Amino acid sequence: MKRQNVRTLSLVITTFTYLLIGAAVFDALESRSEQAIKNSVDEMRVDLQTKYNISNEDYEWIEQMVIEYTPHKAGPQWKFAGSFYFATVVLAMIGYGHSTPSTVAGRAFCMLYAAIGNTTITLIILNTNANHVPLGIPLGIVMFQSIGERLNKGASIVIRNLKKICRCKKTEATELNLMTATSVLSSIIMTSGAAVFSSYEGWTYFDSFYYCFITLTTIGFGDYVALQNDHALQNKPGYMALSVVFILFGLAVVASSINILVLRFMTMQAEEMHREDTDMGP
Amino acid sequence: MKRQNVRTLSLVITTFTYLLIGAAVFDALESRSEQAIKNSVDEMRVDLQTKYNISNEDYEWIEQMVIEYTPHKAGPQWKFAGSFYFATVVLAMIGYGHSTPSTVAGRAFCMLYAAIGNTTITLIILNTNANHVPLGIPLGIVMFQSIGERLNKGASIVIRNLKKICRCKKTEATELNLMTATSVLSSIIMTSGAAVFSSYEGWTYFDSFYYCFITLTTIGFGDYVALQNDHALQNKPGYMALSVVFILFGLAVVASSINILVLRFMTMQAEEMHREDTDMGP
Ligand SMILES: [K+]
Ligand SMILES: [K+]
Repeated sequence: MKRQNVRTLSLVITTFTYLLIGAAVFDALESRSEQAIKNSVDEMRVDLQTKYNISNEDYEWIEQMVIEYTPHKAGPQWKFAGSFYFATVVLAMIGYGHSTPSTVAGRAFCMLYAAIGNTTITLIILNTNANHVPLGIPLGIVMFQSIGERLNKGASIVIRNLKKICRCKKTEATELNLMTATSVLSSIIMTSGAAVFSSYEGWTYFDSFYYCFITLTTIGFGDYVALQNDHALQNKPGYMALSVVFILFGLAVVASSINILVLRFMTMQAEEMHREDTDMGP
Repeated sequence: MKRQNVRTLSLVITTFTYLLIGAAVFDALESRSEQAIKNSVDEMRVDLQTKYNISNEDYEWIEQMVIEYTPHKAGPQWKFAGSFYFATVVLAMIGYGHSTPSTVAGRAFCMLYAAIGNTTITLIILNTNANHVPLGIPLGIVMFQSIGERLNKGASIVIRNLKKICRCKKTEATELNLMTATSVLSSIIMTSGAAVFSSYEGWTYFDSFYYCFITLTTIGFGDYVALQNDHALQNKPGYMALSVVFILFGLAVVASSINILVLRFMTMQAEEMHREDTDMGP
């Protein structure tokens, strides 16, 4: 079998193994709690139906109604501020799903918007930054890569000046310096972001951290979503702006760590290939 | 101002402009329908509360209960099959959020799982495929890139043989051939996927296509999620396998289109730089 095929196959096997491990752990951690929640809600439901004498048919209808109403509880989701938040969440590929287009035209435009947005942005990046940005970066994160690369540049300068002040012999910013810097910056963004959202949304600090992590990895479950209380989209423009900047700037920092990681492995790879070439000799 | 900074700034401005346009269009398309839905649900709610004489307090409690119960309607989400589906959705960064960990341990493991999974897979890709895969590709899509590259290789061979059969002069598969091939393959996967999910889930064809698009772009709103009816996770293992394969294979095909797109622009960029070098002369 060709070497390339073997590698791809082993990658597929690794992925499936990792999925199996994940499935086993999630099962072990969540199944019991799930059963407990289901039992308690089942009981409450029976109590409620008995108390008000609600037929099963009507209860199902209530369920549908409540689910449909959920996004509306947070106030208008599609007025300009809400639509802007939605567009950010789509373009960054986070897709919380806290509110989604309900019309056919809205859904069609949403697909077009994601497709054009990502293609255009990919082309811009590829055209402008080919020398400095690893190519083929995440469709969604792609637009942040450019800012990420600038951040790295800025960090290098700060580190160099710090080293001059400390009278170090070598003032160049090493890869390790940069990786430390971005790690520190990522940690600051995650922890301070968690603190801010925790205070605005009334979440526990852990849940708020979980929200920041799930957002900045662009997974975006939507079990926790900012701006969904007290009509915040309309009434708290400052907090609304902060949330958008958190997403955009946070993803840029994530992109800058990827940027370094990738540059590092490109160098390693190049060195290895050079060694192989030398070893092979005549 | 330095050229690099100008470019980054113009990228930021482009992105914000695109977000503003998106916000305006989504507002125009969705706001009216949103208001109409809200009004009709408001009316139904009043009717219901009057019919059964439910207090406002109890109604809010019903709301909470229904929302909490939603994932349980589909049957156990965290038994092995459901956990496997969840792990796939996390690792591919889709994050439907149809069901999310409810325990602190579950949430902590989920963050660890996403972090390790994506780092490890990035490193594997970078180590094994550095010559053929554009580096720094999507954290989530990264593992599919390798399969995507193999698909392209396979497509080249098929195209070359077809050309030989047609007795073409040049039998090499051109970039344009390959791009056409992946586009056709993507279209087949999207349209046939839409047909399959439409028949299994009872969605309209358009909604089913919307589901496939939102899934394979890894946005994953979760307004439409497969395997959430008739305890499908437990009772329809064939359909469950099909859904997972659809995600994995679909993302691989998407990755293979990106692979070509990126290679194409790398070539263009190299040519441009070569021209610039030649023009500059002495
Ligand atoms: K999502
Ligand atoms: K997502």
